[in-house]
Amino acid sequence: RSMDAYEVRETDPDYEGVTRTERDRPTPADDEVLIRLRAASLNYRDLAIANSELAYPGASLPVVPLSDGAGDVVEVGAAVERLAEGDRVATPFAPNWVDGPGTDEKLATSTGGNVDGALTQYATFPAESVPRLPDHLSYEEGATLSCAGLTAWRALVEDGGLSADETVLALGTGGVSTFALQFAEMHGARSVVTSSSDEKLDRARELGAWETINYEETPDWHETVMERTDGEGVDHVVEVGGQGTLERSLGAAGINGHVHLIGVLTGQQGEIDPSPVLGKAVTLEGVFGVGSRAMFDRMNRALDTTGTTPVVDRVFEFDAAREAYRYLESGDHQGKVVVDIE
Amino acid sequence: RSMDAYEVRETDPDYEGVTRTERDRPTPADDEVLIRLRAASLNYRDLAIANSELAYPGASLPVVPLSDGAGDVVEVGAAVERLAEGDRVATPFAPNWVDGPGTDEKLATSTGGNVDGALTQYATFPAESVPRLPDHLSYEEGATLSCAGLTAWRALVEDGGLSADETVLALGTGGVSTFALQFAEMHGARSVVTSSSDEKLDRARELGAWETINYEETPDWHETVMERTDGEGVDHVVEVGGQGTLERSLGAAGINGHVHLIGVLTGQQGEIDPSPVLGKAVTLEGVFGVGSRAMFDRMNRALDTTGTTPVVDRVFEFDAAREAYRYLESGDHQGKVVVDIE
Amino acid sequence: RSMDAYEVRETDPDYEGVTRTERDRPTPADDEVLIRLRAASLNYRDLAIANSELAYPGASLPVVPLSDGAGDVVEVGAAVERLAEGDRVATPFAPNWVDGPGTDEKLATSTGGNVDGALTQYATFPAESVPRLPDHLSYEEGATLSCAGLTAWRALVEDGGLSADETVLALGTGGVSTFALQFAEMHGARSVVTSSSDEKLDRARELGAWETINYEETPDWHETVMERTDGEGVDHVVEVGGQGTLERSLGAAGINGHVHLIGVLTGQQGEIDPSPVLGKAVTLEGVFGVGSRAMFDRMNRALDTTGTTPVVDRVFEFDAAREAYRYLESGDHQGKVVVDIE
Amino acid sequence: RSMDAYEVRETDPDYEGVTRTERDRPTPADDEVLIRLRAASLNYRDLAIANSELAYPGASLPVVPLSDGAGDVVEVGAAVERLAEGDRVATPFAPNWVDGPGTDEKLATSTGGNVDGALTQYATFPAESVPRLPDHLSYEEGATLSCAGLTAWRALVEDGGLSADETVLALGTGGVSTFALQFAEMHGARSVVTSSSDEKLDRARELGAWETINYEETPDWHETVMERTDGEGVDHVVEVGGQGTLERSLGAAGINGHVHLIGVLTGQQGEIDPSPVLGKAVTLEGVFGVGSRAMFDRMNRALDTTGTTPVVDRVFEFDAAREAYRYLESGDHQGKVVVDIE
Repeated sequence: RSMDAYEVRETDPDYEGVTRTERDRPTPADDEVLIRLRAASLNYRDLAIANSELAYPGASLPVVPLSDGAGDVVEVGAAVERLAEGDRVATPFAPNWVDGPGTDEKLATSTGGNVDGALTQYATFPAESVPRLPDHLSYEEGATLSCAGLTAWRALVEDGGLSADETVLALGTGGVSTFALQFAEMHGARSVVTSSSDEKLDRARELGAWETINYEETPDWHETVMERTDGEGVDHVVEVGGQGTLERSLGAAGINGHVHLIGVLTGQQGEIDPSPVLGKAVTLEGVFGVGSRAMFDRMNRALDTTGTTPVVDRVFEFDAAREAYRYLESGDHQGKVVVDIE
Repeated sequence: RSMDAYEVRETDPDYEGVTRTERDRPTPADDEVLIRLRAASLNYRDLAIANSELAYPGASLPVVPLSDGAGDVVEVGAAVERLAEGDRVATPFAPNWVDGPGTDEKLATSTGGNVDGALTQYATFPAESVPRLPDHLSYEEGATLSCAGLTAWRALVEDGGLSADETVLALGTGGVSTFALQFAEMHGARSVVTSSSDEKLDRARELGAWETINYEETPDWHETVMERTDGEGVDHVVEVGGQGTLERSLGAAGINGHVHLIGVLTGQQGEIDPSPVLGKAVTLEGVFGVGSRAMFDRMNRALDTTGTTPVVDRVFEFDAAREAYRYLESGDHQGKVVVDIE
Repeated sequence: RSMDAYEVRETDPDYEGVTRTERDRPTPADDEVLIRLRAASLNYRDLAIANSELAYPGASLPVVPLSDGAGDVVEVGAAVERLAEGDRVATPFAPNWVDGPGTDEKLATSTGGNVDGALTQYATFPAESVPRLPDHLSYEEGATLSCAGLTAWRALVEDGGLSADETVLALGTGGVSTFALQFAEMHGARSVVTSSSDEKLDRARELGAWETINYEETPDWHETVMERTDGEGVDHVVEVGGQGTLERSLGAAGINGHVHLIGVLTGQQGEIDPSPVLGKAVTLEGVFGVGSRAMFDRMNRALDTTGTTPVVDRVFEFDAAREAYRYLESGDHQGKVVVDIE
Repeated sequence: RSMDAYEVRETDPDYEGVTRTERDRPTPADDEVLIRLRAASLNYRDLAIANSELAYPGASLPVVPLSDGAGDVVEVGAAVERLAEGDRVATPFAPNWVDGPGTDEKLATSTGGNVDGALTQYATFPAESVPRLPDHLSYEEGATLSCAGLTAWRALVEDGGLSADETVLALGTGGVSTFALQFAEMHGARSVVTSSSDEKLDRARELGAWETINYEETPDWHETVMERTDGEGVDHVVEVGGQGTLERSLGAAGINGHVHLIGVLTGQQGEIDPSPVLGKAVTLEGVFGVGSRAMFDRMNRALDTTGTTPVVDRVFEFDAAREAYRYLESGDHQGKVVVDIE
């Protein structure tokens, strides 16, 4: 039987290689489940995979794009016990990473990168790597977690041990940064958000931001962070990349602070002067490969307990997936850009 | 110059040894501050110090009682830089414990136990051990933190690394347990509260409790905890002691769970069967000596950020301090019992 | 094709239920490997499984006994990539525990308990749970690691974060305790060993013990530990159980010390007074289910780097396996009791 | 009464500002001890303080130089209890850092930088910050610990949690690197050492190095590290700075590896491409302010238990202190350069 799906067939600056197609519906192996996807969302890395002007190490075209999806289990392999038909689930970013710290082996495959992803009606994954969705989330909301949500959770909670006495700096208002703001709020922590749009900063305050800074008006925003924290700086920066931000992020960190480095592109940050790492005993930590299913389960329990709902900026029809890529690239969004799967 | 103060002169089952008196106002040494106390609060250990039927190791009578107080700095020693006249502050439980893990040396003195405490108009403490109060707290609220608040904070946040995916069990609705409930809520975690009073359980739910159990109606409340958590048990028990509760607390803990053991009395728990520690890889951790000033500062920042206000059950006049002891012993309170200092 | 194997068919106080038999050689599933065993070793839990006077929760007879074995991979399932024919390997204690913290699911099966074990010529295990042996170990040495070695490693290194400034107390000179002594020595830490035999204590000193105590001559050995450590107590106790030792172990622990509770029998410890847990801020931690394959790999790397060789007390012929049980029960051994597999 | 001492009066490329002089012997305040110094040792930061071609942030001339010294307590302030006349002690690098994590306040003063140091017959320090020397060390050996020893200990053991399954890369054979090699050996870990001198590499192997690499013969030594560790890289790099090494250090780190960044000079490293931090989930951690007295005590206990002796390359007479500076700058040493104090 066939299914509707997208493939990235080639890279192109205007995402013309993102192509709607028909494919054979996959069959789950003994340890796999077959998921009927209902929604998927885009991350910056998905732009890099499809855009000839960017580069994502380890992409392997053609590939069904997108790591972040949500849907229902419709078939389980013979050896699968932990999931059943009808379970509402999310797709894994790293299908081999079930538990424990990351290793080369666990990070060898990435969904929508070198194995087929979520922008399709059906997909198979190892059952061990597939988390159940929190009940209170729609498919569209559940489709934002696999990369963006789990990246912020891992950085702040799993690696960072976030607690209510700390301060978090989120750069911008994209998917990861908005989750970072929400996880800070969830743990009682203070958050500082930057953006070039006062409107987005207003929305960030509604979501709980303690301070907001317009970085166009205040290009030296790291100094503003220092002032507003009485010279103490922040405990955590969720550094999502972008040319030239890392040095300022190091500048905004307090003594013993953590800069969680997130991103996809070699050379994206340019060269930096590492002196603040030394002079303030800062820890600069790479967040690579997103996270394990065990981490995903913990995040989902937290979302469930607190009733936290991901911020969905805009939902595109399945037919308009290319538009979703272009919209994400425009940077006009706040939170996540989602595609419905018919 | 003289001041009004209380002394515990001798232990007595009805707290008749708690005596109002006049004393010379103390003078701060070079590294000390003089505090004008405005309020103080009672903990169970204060009953044990004053009651001949209980026992508190390390008490040294006569002593000005109570570890938990709040007031203003009115004089600073010659070598003091970090505090100034007019600072609103709290008293330290362990005046030698400034930072780092506890040691015999740091835990050698305890306020209101073997060094003079907070139920007095004036007291001196080493400036290094005295934390500033959060601005939004009254003196009465600020006077609840030194022992009760910091014990719960240390157990759950400093030792326990609490996060929003976890579940906390608080036994009863006394001071430490109510703070435990509030710190769980502050960090997005689920909390379960037990009490023999449905009215107190109602109030606990208002404070954010996820589940409540009346332990008189449900003596095997550990089994109820297991059921309500789908057989998973809780991640943290704040075990405040009382005959026979520890075995049930171990029973309510999930695999890899933490039972934070709090209390003051040798033999208070009776003998227990440690098998659940083994069979569920539980960690049973003693919380001794409350905490350091560094921990206190972190707690205060969290209270400040989240605007959390301690639960004050009832405030007694300075003249009625003995009544406050008796009321705490009755167990009718929920949260903290405070004495105003005129 | 058939193979020689032992089964525990029924429990018996003299191990008469441990029976040599012939069985069909198992076939590896897609994700399994077939191991040709060359040696196996006994742990106290193996006595409990076979002895009607003891009890091991979760044993399921008949079962091929023993968790600890070593041999060669002779066949790999179709989906197995990480091992190959000819690899020298050890058997896993918990075949579902590959990585991360233990969970009910991961600890559901235990080798030689409710799934077939290592006292056989051939056995199959999930490839993900099977570690490679360090090159410098013989099969007999390699057959001591799965339970005894990994239990000590997990307690001291994985859970305990052992470093060279710390002191370890090992109770007795059995398998786990001797590994504890060796891992302490490996990390530069001081170790204290107890035994009723001066000869065994001599051997312990040869292995690096810093202090030794004959507990028959010194029944209050916890006080001796306190004296020899200048009143500081030890940082880690590897508490392998036995009636009445746990209270003394708590007494020998220093402030903030860790007592790692190991054992198999409900009620084995009797009832204890938990007061020292409170009064010294001791952490009592259950070590359950031994450890993951990731931990096993880390231990093996450490054995390899340091050239550490497990202490094999005595090797029995395959035919004399029952004698091995009885010898272990006698308590005359120091280190591990091994059975060769022909 | 007067004493002989050195002062750095001005910076000079040939250390002509390092001047022998007479000073008044200091008097200990109530919380201080007076130490009669017997030996002191040099660190690279001491060159930076005295050399006009380098720069050390926070130096304040004139200053008695050198942070690392050893001697005897000859007088104690009225309030001092933990030390007594006759105690053999070392000088603290950060006299305000007693315990807990570093803070701005604790790191505000540094011995031989902005407060007087150890190249003098007598010096006073707060008693709380002064550690006792291990008995087996001479004054010359004991004078190597305060900066060089404690930096390596903190990086690998306190921050890094070093264990015997790990691999450590030490860059060069200077003071910190040689301690790193010794602490790796102490904890059973593998170590890799680089140098431009085969003779020094021979000596490193005698001290326990697992692998050695001549970085002049092998400029791409990070690739060699990767090969010799079977592509796994190292768990810890002790990165002591020097132009251009940091990028290679990041290259030599394995997945989840730690690069401990040590150094004194802003811009010393030049600009680096932080991509490996991201792509291998590496943690780059600044080691600033050396460490607390609590850490120093733990290091000393470990030195004592294991009988480890610091490597003293050469001892200069008090009169020849300037020669010691020049010799250290030459880079010909391995281990520490010491000055005797008459």
